[in-house]
Amino acid sequence: MKNKLAVTLIAAATGAGFALSALAQHKPEDLVKHRQAAMTLIAWYFGPIGAMVNGKIPFDAKIAARNAGYLVTLSKMPLEGFDPSTAGAKHTKAKDKIYHEMGKFKEHMEKMQTAVEKLDKAAQTGNEGEIKVAFGETGKSCKSCHDDFRAK
Amino acid sequence: MKNKLAVTLIAAATGAGFALSALAQHKPEDLVKHRQAAMTLIAWYFGPIGAMVNGKIPFDAKIAARNAGYLVTLSKMPLEGFDPSTAGAKHTKAKDKIYHEMGKFKEHMEKMQTAVEKLDKAAQTGNEGEIKVAFGETGKSCKSCHDDFRAK
Repeated sequence: MKNKLAVTLIAAATGAGFALSALAQHKPEDLVKHRQAAMTLIAWYFGPIGAMVNGKIPFDAKIAARNAGYLVTLSKMPLEGFDPSTAGAKHTKAKDKIYHEMGKFKEHMEKMQTAVEKLDKAAQTGNEGEIKVAFGETGKSCKSCHDDFRAK
Repeated sequence: MKNKLAVTLIAAATGAGFALSALAQHKPEDLVKHRQAAMTLIAWYFGPIGAMVNGKIPFDAKIAARNAGYLVTLSKMPLEGFDPSTAGAKHTKAKDKIYHEMGKFKEHMEKMQTAVEKLDKAAQTGNEGEIKVAFGETGKSCKSCHDDFRAK
């Protein structure tokens, strides 16, 4: 309980408040379900773009542009599921240190959102080379956050 | 196996093809996971708009507009998870008759997408009365499809 209060105060102090406070009524297990649903869909729509630029499936500019557009919206969602009330929750690979380093965690999320916006801009041009570069940058932003905050 | 072939042919004939064929490589359990993730997020962002217009939580025009915007994107996602290959899948309330009535199912989905677009337009005005009407229409579109194609 003391830990939960501590992480709540840290989150408030580091400005992760807007979306979180609006959803304060959600149960921790529902917040975990929410963020996992968002991550599932992010992987779903990100994956095929990678498969295209790495030559594993044929390049399809229409699908790449559609998926990147979806990702712009989806990339905004996970953060609100990482509410301090989910510290200690079961069935999640998210490390509790997220709630002690909320500022850093939020920075990672914002980098990912910016990378996805660039990916979307590239995808709307239909230029496979540009998409490949932007895909790589986006992938790096995913990995650096997973390395820090997700259990293996 | 015979049934699966039948529903595949029906789906092809009724034009549910574009998104489905692009994802033909997905396993049935992953398709179920995908569509359930999309439905989870649709409920997540739709619910608070209903709570607002029904006076259960304070009206917040900013959150309503944000959520409705998210819903425009999310509403486009579930259909691609309802691939005929998921007929007979476990851990789903979706009735297999979807794959025998794909034209009707697709119509339901398109009505929902149109209702969500109207909800978004209303939400961008910030007018609570308009949002309430559009919320009701969207809710009806959800219910009519659930009544037909989702097990109780």
